Amino acid sequence: MFLTRRIQHCQQCGTAVEYRVPPDDNRDRAVCPSCGHIHYVNPLNVVGTLPVWGEQVLLCRRNIEPRYGFWTLPAGFMELGETTEEGARRETDEEAGARIELQGLYTVLNVVGAGQVHLYYRARLLDTDFAPGPETIEAQLFHEHEIPWDQLAFSTVRKTLRHYFADRKTECFGVHCSDIV
Amino acid sequence: MFLTRRIQHCQQCGTAVEYRVPPDDNRDRAVCPSCGHIHYVNPLNVVGTLPVWGEQVLLCRRNIEPRYGFWTLPAGFMELGETTEEGARRETDEEAGARIELQGLYTVLNVVGAGQVHLYYRARLLDTDFAPGPETIEAQLFHEHEIPWDQLAFSTVRKTLRHYFADRKTECFGVHCSDIV
Repeated sequence: MFLTRRIQHCQQCGTAVEYRVPPDDNRDRAVCPSCGHIHYVNPLNVVGTLPVWGEQVLLCRRNIEPRYGFWTLPAGFMELGETTEEGARRETDEEAGARIELQGLYTVLNVVGAGQVHLYYRARLLDTDFAPGPETIEAQLFHEHEIPWDQLAFSTVRKTLRHYFADRKTECFGVHCSDIV
Repeated sequence: MFLTRRIQHCQQCGTAVEYRVPPDDNRDRAVCPSCGHIHYVNPLNVVGTLPVWGEQVLLCRRNIEPRYGFWTLPAGFMELGETTEEGARRETDEEAGARIELQGLYTVLNVVGAGQVHLYYRARLLDTDFAPGPETIEAQLFHEHEIPWDQLAFSTVRKTLRHYFADRKTECFGVHCSDIV
């Protein structure tokens, strides 16, 4: 169900862990019977952008699994030492080589089955000189009628694009929060 | 800097890990020299609520470290299997025993030094029959002029409360995003 493999050994001392509910807790955790270390596993943030150039939006075709060959907005796992904005900007640089100006948080989408929260920022492209990194086959601008809806990599990408094209009619962009079930 | 202790052993096979940049990566990770497992450590979400009863807001006095005895909004680490909203509701139940109606995402605050993102939801209290759990000494309603500003547990709590009392003047509550540095 979740991307992380089930913990087998203590990350502090290497002893085989036991799964049990620790004192003052109410969930099963991987607990070390030797050193007592409790391993917590929590949802992760995926941060990305919706880069816009006039009437067009930027999509990247994935050069990696999962969803190899499908189109996505630039996004990836948030790293320690950065903010959600910095992570979104980094992923846009790494995957599309695109220079952007961030325009604010746009979607917060819970993907419970994957143990993830996806946060997308709207962004204005500063130019169209893209330089996709190794995780991307190609980066391309699309008008709304050109979006490859049946070739999108993830439902959070689809949802973010749907919101954008709807909101664009009124130029009123709030923050959209919802859950992927 | 971060709450998680540095990984020493492979969580899959127990072998002592080595820190190095894996192929196709650009960050130091704990890599297992035996089974090859790569351990990723990423920021965690803390989810909570700002529960409101008329002119008053609900704060909880912490019965646990860190910041034992200081006042906080009900909040805690998001767990696998739940949405941000569900986590915020759960924490409000666990820490305050408060029944609420969620009113939307309110603050998204990056706490880079702690490797955390704090997400607070506005909430309407349905009654004032609180039943604090073991992590809380007491749960109490405060008017704005009664808020113990110098006894608040975390800067994200202070920031969320400041936004709320400012926005309340206009009854216009957007989503506030910022970073704690």
